[in-house]
Amino acid sequence: MQSRPRLLSQGVLEKMVCRCGPITKDGAQASYIPILREADPSRLGICVADNAGRVLKAGDAEETFSIQSIVKIVTFTCSLLDSGMDRVQEKVSVEPTHDGFNSIINLATKNDSKPLNPMINAGSIACLPFVRGGTLADKSDRIVDFVKKMAGNPDIHVDEDIFQSERSAGSRNRALAYYMKSTDVIENHVDVEELLDAYFRTCSIRLSSVDLAKIALVYANNGMNRTDGVELFPKEIARMIKATMVMCGVYDESGEVATRIGLPTKSGVGGGILSIVPNQMGIGIYGPALNAKGSSVAGLALLEMLSAYMDASIF
Amino acid sequence: MQSRPRLLSQGVLEKMVCRCGPITKDGAQASYIPILREADPSRLGICVADNAGRVLKAGDAEETFSIQSIVKIVTFTCSLLDSGMDRVQEKVSVEPTHDGFNSIINLATKNDSKPLNPMINAGSIACLPFVRGGTLADKSDRIVDFVKKMAGNPDIHVDEDIFQSERSAGSRNRALAYYMKSTDVIENHVDVEELLDAYFRTCSIRLSSVDLAKIALVYANNGMNRTDGVELFPKEIARMIKATMVMCGVYDESGEVATRIGLPTKSGVGGGILSIVPNQMGIGIYGPALNAKGSSVAGLALLEMLSAYMDASIF
Amino acid sequence: MQSRPRLLSQGVLEKMVCRCGPITKDGAQASYIPILREADPSRLGICVADNAGRVLKAGDAEETFSIQSIVKIVTFTCSLLDSGMDRVQEKVSVEPTHDGFNSIINLATKNDSKPLNPMINAGSIACLPFVRGGTLADKSDRIVDFVKKMAGNPDIHVDEDIFQSERSAGSRNRALAYYMKSTDVIENHVDVEELLDAYFRTCSIRLSSVDLAKIALVYANNGMNRTDGVELFPKEIARMIKATMVMCGVYDESGEVATRIGLPTKSGVGGGILSIVPNQMGIGIYGPALNAKGSSVAGLALLEMLSAYMDASIF
Amino acid sequence: MQSRPRLLSQGVLEKMVCRCGPITKDGAQASYIPILREADPSRLGICVADNAGRVLKAGDAEETFSIQSIVKIVTFTCSLLDSGMDRVQEKVSVEPTHDGFNSIINLATKNDSKPLNPMINAGSIACLPFVRGGTLADKSDRIVDFVKKMAGNPDIHVDEDIFQSERSAGSRNRALAYYMKSTDVIENHVDVEELLDAYFRTCSIRLSSVDLAKIALVYANNGMNRTDGVELFPKEIARMIKATMVMCGVYDESGEVATRIGLPTKSGVGGGILSIVPNQMGIGIYGPALNAKGSSVAGLALLEMLSAYMDASIF
Repeated sequence: MQSRPRLLSQGVLEKMVCRCGPITKDGAQASYIPILREADPSRLGICVADNAGRVLKAGDAEETFSIQSIVKIVTFTCSLLDSGMDRVQEKVSVEPTHDGFNSIINLATKNDSKPLNPMINAGSIACLPFVRGGTLADKSDRIVDFVKKMAGNPDIHVDEDIFQSERSAGSRNRALAYYMKSTDVIENHVDVEELLDAYFRTCSIRLSSVDLAKIALVYANNGMNRTDGVELFPKEIARMIKATMVMCGVYDESGEVATRIGLPTKSGVGGGILSIVPNQMGIGIYGPALNAKGSSVAGLALLEMLSAYMDASIF
Repeated sequence: MQSRPRLLSQGVLEKMVCRCGPITKDGAQASYIPILREADPSRLGICVADNAGRVLKAGDAEETFSIQSIVKIVTFTCSLLDSGMDRVQEKVSVEPTHDGFNSIINLATKNDSKPLNPMINAGSIACLPFVRGGTLADKSDRIVDFVKKMAGNPDIHVDEDIFQSERSAGSRNRALAYYMKSTDVIENHVDVEELLDAYFRTCSIRLSSVDLAKIALVYANNGMNRTDGVELFPKEIARMIKATMVMCGVYDESGEVATRIGLPTKSGVGGGILSIVPNQMGIGIYGPALNAKGSSVAGLALLEMLSAYMDASIF
Repeated sequence: MQSRPRLLSQGVLEKMVCRCGPITKDGAQASYIPILREADPSRLGICVADNAGRVLKAGDAEETFSIQSIVKIVTFTCSLLDSGMDRVQEKVSVEPTHDGFNSIINLATKNDSKPLNPMINAGSIACLPFVRGGTLADKSDRIVDFVKKMAGNPDIHVDEDIFQSERSAGSRNRALAYYMKSTDVIENHVDVEELLDAYFRTCSIRLSSVDLAKIALVYANNGMNRTDGVELFPKEIARMIKATMVMCGVYDESGEVATRIGLPTKSGVGGGILSIVPNQMGIGIYGPALNAKGSSVAGLALLEMLSAYMDASIF
Repeated sequence: MQSRPRLLSQGVLEKMVCRCGPITKDGAQASYIPILREADPSRLGICVADNAGRVLKAGDAEETFSIQSIVKIVTFTCSLLDSGMDRVQEKVSVEPTHDGFNSIINLATKNDSKPLNPMINAGSIACLPFVRGGTLADKSDRIVDFVKKMAGNPDIHVDEDIFQSERSAGSRNRALAYYMKSTDVIENHVDVEELLDAYFRTCSIRLSSVDLAKIALVYANNGMNRTDGVELFPKEIARMIKATMVMCGVYDESGEVATRIGLPTKSGVGGGILSIVPNQMGIGIYGPALNAKGSSVAGLALLEMLSAYMDASIF
């Protein structure tokens, strides 16, 4: 018989943040663009939002930062919602991969040139054209709006400084996109520079771990926004998102996270982590000191502690 | 709030087998060894064992066949149980991969030469030396015994004809093993031929889908054998097994299975499928007509139908 | 004792063109840009220029076409001449590879990310910044001028239509260039779009097989222009060019060409072939019907016949 | 006009060995088997045999050592001679590759699974079955005999201690061979263990740099043994051997050697180097201190000095 997870209290959460704080010293901020290097690496915060309407916060939970790769789950969601699974999957697989987030190898070695997964850069870029919108800028607006709606926070916005920085440091992503254009994963009429602008724009959404927790809760409830009872997307899409998160959400330590933590999780180099306890809870974490693989080092420790405490693994 | 899965009845199960029967025509038996070609491709059977002690069967549920790759979850379990996670993970990762079950590419391109996953051949072969036993033959005996114990069936045995066939057709597995010996994943004192004999022996265990369902139920209950209340292995191991099954259990369609079916699943070229509804149910399926990727074509269809009916996806 | 090569006569050359003519039917024009598809696939011409000052022509020797990949030997020559071997080799290796001309795999798998060879697209693009010139446009002008000088033909020019076509179909080359920028093979200050414009411009040089033969003769004489006695580049550079041509000059059939023909050879998708009999002779061929690997199908047959006739293999 | 190479004298050769002696300190003996570690790393010797019948020796020219990879040119020669180019090339390509001598990657990524080149381990193992002989032992005897005949030295023999060492350290080669058996490059009836015994036996042939020089001279003369006027193999085979040596004879520095030295060359981890000046001269070198890529470090320096002195590059 399945035991109910232990209930979480404010005190317990604060104690966990306190215990994980020193782990921030084992990491460092992302450095590929100057603006990310400005983050204070000692920061650590968490927010947990549950189906009972409780929103617990501890540490630097209100601090804002750029969403970075976490937006990939929203881009994938919108592409599936707006164009349907069949059309999207013509261009992007949902297969697991150990390859790095910016790998070009599988594009070049797999026969059909399809990016393996919407959780890696190539796959996410390939999803973007399937999002609703007359122009690529409209498509990125749609994603920003979807983030706002799920978080219930109209103040969420694109950070223009981060956007400009991403854009000027985007050679690898340009390589991925032009490669996919050359193999028709990105169709010929799509302007790669506009596509990358849209992509970088969505990566530069600034929000807090509280926002992440609320977004996570929507996925935990299979697309239903509990605050207003509106179904934002159907269960099939929610499940596909969660499955791909388990397989590829934490770069090339996804397997480690699946086995140690057991929750659908997506991290970003901005220091954010979004994690889902299906049917129960959304979790947002912020900690800009990253481990060697690009995820918040103290954030993952905190998430592991939390999952163990609540016995929340889906496995 | 999570709805309870719909209850399954004998009638429903039989109807599903009936509906999936024609799908067997879309596949063909494995052909790399003659003996597997002898299977009747029109066979299809299923057994579901649950925590209420119910054991439902439909179709060719009692038919026996070789366990093949499904034994990998037992080998991994025993290696973790007997040598501990740390020692095993020095030699085998638990990262997802899209590569084929017999791929040598990652062994050759990843810096540390570690097989990515215990669910692919290389990883499973590398796990075997960590199973308890004075000799490699003892280690394979231990795995056979563990299968018997989980299934509660003393009649399960190694099929000598299949074993001899596997052995004589084992060039690719020999290549994998010798490669790993050359990179010290398999330690120098291990005799590769004996290791492969042990490996092929465990692949040749003959059992039925009823046995698979009962084994699956032990994993569903995180290592606890519900019939006698004995804990065969701790929850941590059960979770690691289920997580790796989701990521890599169904060869290079693991991602498809995770998103469409959402249950920890392992298939074998003998036609068997073992699938787990955590905390509730074990599922065993037999259908020797395989799809192009090496899994039972009608079996996967049946499993998808069943998962949808019960709304059982873990995601 | 080495026998002297048989002397070539006008009649012999014409007979060879005649015999190889029907082979043009086994190929087809390049089709990745519309303008190359306009070429007449039945064309076949050859010019041989030797140290005695003889210039033999047969078939469509005066027909002009775009130089395409053959310009890579000139780009490599100019980069070595203008920046020295050491600087160029910091960014580009001279190792053989079987990979296709537009492969990105080795860039992604070799540790230092250096393109393997200046005869493949990535390597040639990486050489271009080392050519003398204040701007990238100046660098491409330098290459065009060098081609004119070696051919002794002031009428050689860039075909603007081909240039525009190449440019608009350049996604794969953009991917290669941005990838190399992301790994610092192309330095950060270099504008990739300008670099590719320069690259496409040099690929669009229009000339005839007579021009190719004269250029080849300069390489045959290790950099010395026999018509005016001027040394255009030193012997060390000539040898490096010829060695890389043998290893990689004919895409992924370089090995076949080395063993069957045995002459330093470079082909282009415009239908041209430039081949060198060291110390004796320059050969230019035109035949726009390409084989599956991108070289003139009848042109290679003609070259093999010629090499056999003259017993000219360097091996 | 081609200048004649400068004539070599005993004094010049001794001076070169003297100058290159200190370079031996930059390398180390092969260490993958204990017996190779016993070689004295300070040794350096050379022998040059020419068409005038002169045999110049300097340094440790008479020292014997194991032929190792240099035997690959003999194995390839015998396979072409005994089975014809067409049959051999069904199983082995002659394309250049930058991959290491024991790489398995191309076997696994190229569609047809053919080893790229008879100068790398996989390709050489695949050539062996094409050598004449009722058993695999007979085939290795044929290769040993061919080496003796070319060198005109009946005392050349297989070193049993080295053979046993090679054999017991052969996991990587076993991996390559079993992999090729699994893809039918090595046909099903061939016993891999016997094949590897034959392979290791030929690698363990013990000879001196004088022997290598005489063997090289046969290739320099396109198969003709100048001492007795007997044609051992036709020119077509000689050319194919020399071309593959230029492309792949010196492991992954073949390109460097082609551009810097410009002579068909094959090195072995026993410290030997065999190099050919076409139509003129055979060169044998011994220096067991190897560079990081597995060739004699002082030996290559000596060869470069010699080639430059004689202006002998074929390019």
